[in-house]
Amino acid sequence: MGKLLAVGSMAFDAIETPFGKTDKILGGAAPYIGLAASQFDIDIAIASVIGEDFPESYLSLLKNRNIDTSAIEMVKGGKTFFWSGKYHNDLNSRDTIETQLNVLADFNPVIPEGYKDADVVMLGNLHPSTQLSVIAQMDKKPKLIVLDTMNFWMDNTWDELMQVIAKVDVITINDEEARQLTGEYSLVKAAQKINKMGPKFVVIKKGEHGALLFHEDNIFFAPALPLEEVFDPTGAGDTFAGGFSGYIAATEDISFENMKNAVIYGSNLASFCVEKFGTERMEKLTKREIQQRLLQFKELTQFEIELT
Amino acid sequence: MGKLLAVGSMAFDAIETPFGKTDKILGGAAPYIGLAASQFDIDIAIASVIGEDFPESYLSLLKNRNIDTSAIEMVKGGKTFFWSGKYHNDLNSRDTIETQLNVLADFNPVIPEGYKDADVVMLGNLHPSTQLSVIAQMDKKPKLIVLDTMNFWMDNTWDELMQVIAKVDVITINDEEARQLTGEYSLVKAAQKINKMGPKFVVIKKGEHGALLFHEDNIFFAPALPLEEVFDPTGAGDTFAGGFSGYIAATEDISFENMKNAVIYGSNLASFCVEKFGTERMEKLTKREIQQRLLQFKELTQFEIELT
Repeated sequence: MGKLLAVGSMAFDAIETPFGKTDKILGGAAPYIGLAASQFDIDIAIASVIGEDFPESYLSLLKNRNIDTSAIEMVKGGKTFFWSGKYHNDLNSRDTIETQLNVLADFNPVIPEGYKDADVVMLGNLHPSTQLSVIAQMDKKPKLIVLDTMNFWMDNTWDELMQVIAKVDVITINDEEARQLTGEYSLVKAAQKINKMGPKFVVIKKGEHGALLFHEDNIFFAPALPLEEVFDPTGAGDTFAGGFSGYIAATEDISFENMKNAVIYGSNLASFCVEKFGTERMEKLTKREIQQRLLQFKELTQFEIELT
Repeated sequence: MGKLLAVGSMAFDAIETPFGKTDKILGGAAPYIGLAASQFDIDIAIASVIGEDFPESYLSLLKNRNIDTSAIEMVKGGKTFFWSGKYHNDLNSRDTIETQLNVLADFNPVIPEGYKDADVVMLGNLHPSTQLSVIAQMDKKPKLIVLDTMNFWMDNTWDELMQVIAKVDVITINDEEARQLTGEYSLVKAAQKINKMGPKFVVIKKGEHGALLFHEDNIFFAPALPLEEVFDPTGAGDTFAGGFSGYIAATEDISFENMKNAVIYGSNLASFCVEKFGTERMEKLTKREIQQRLLQFKELTQFEIELT
């Protein structure tokens, strides 16, 4: 049974999509990563930070999934990170209405002793210095360090970002970010350049157009499941990251062949995430539903042509 | 050995991409369809129209591939259809600089007796009335009629377009056109609506993001092969259509399972088309190269997860 350490934000989100809007609901990368990864038979801990305003019920949600929450620091008198955003009609882009960093501004993760030897470390989207401090606290080199990041850190903390990119095995970013990071329009060339920066595996997420996994000269593609309705894309990328890293922790196999499966599981779980607002769908998701959807992914992609 | 009848424009194209520009070169839907479809072991004829200015060498190119060109009408004193366009830097969009319909304006295809019983009819992008006249000339109902069309006909000839859509088995259009045709943003819903208009099979082309095949409740997805360099996207959609219809004509099997393979072959051939200007790459393409690329498509998409 593998051990996964996930680091990421915990937040209140207020979301507006063409289908409705929410008051403050549970958000941030860490809950999405945790809810996805805890579908696998692994030991998992989350390192994060919350304010005194964070409801106990949200923590219980994670504890009930056997997630170790002891490294989720509660700052007395502090307020939890808050984000609000509004999606455009096509759901492919959004405007941020408000960001209040609050306790996240001074987040200094302290990794529990029991997780300093984690097999897989999932670094959710955070300040690169915060991500670096997590790597520095590990007692031994993990089997796999997975990094998620975004364009904001490319714009504002380039040097620190390059330091953390150099230390990780897998990076997951979206297509536009891959292009920004490398100055290459072709994703094949972008992946080659990112390879040279450090990560042996590059996952480029293309939202409704699926995800590409690059490793040496190999490329694997996982489509997004075509859905009748995408309700709320919030957290899809974090859910993908949680599914990906959770599957690797469960199988303890970092071969390219197995990483293909991890990408499929990431896409699988993300396809559920977008069906309802926030974490709602992920909270009720069953292993049986995941297995049924795996069958849909097979039907969607597998074909039989005899090579002549 | 199946029989394929392909109808489409023959043109001079003048193309500008970020990588260079061409003088007038061979263009139009029909040559791309023909060059792709003639990779399969089938009987194939092209119905089209050219002016007196059309070089014999371009016709020889098709004849040398065993394509029956007897239904390519040459209009004495007429000028061949001309199109010039310039691609934007990302190659995903283009501006039309000039269109001269010339002899295409009065194109009235006459189907040769020997092809009035074709197994597969590939209706390349043309005025819907022209496409309807081809269907009307068939002696018996073909196994499969495949329709390609575009937004221009939705804007200008809606009623005629609806008539031809009602008579075909497969429609291939791009994602934006599927949305325009149905008013549905979700491609799943768009395909369901198009289904009700007539075609039992709907192929939605997403360019560099691949192609989706819809039939009843089944969906299949063929990715585009990620390439280091896309040189010229002109003709990729027509090449896809030629690969798709050529494979169906060769196998004479219109099951969903076999149509998956047709979509993979269409994507396979289109991935070569974009590597050079115009038809250049398709003229030299060998069966061996196609087989090797099929292997790449398998590696790109096939995975092994045990269902538990």
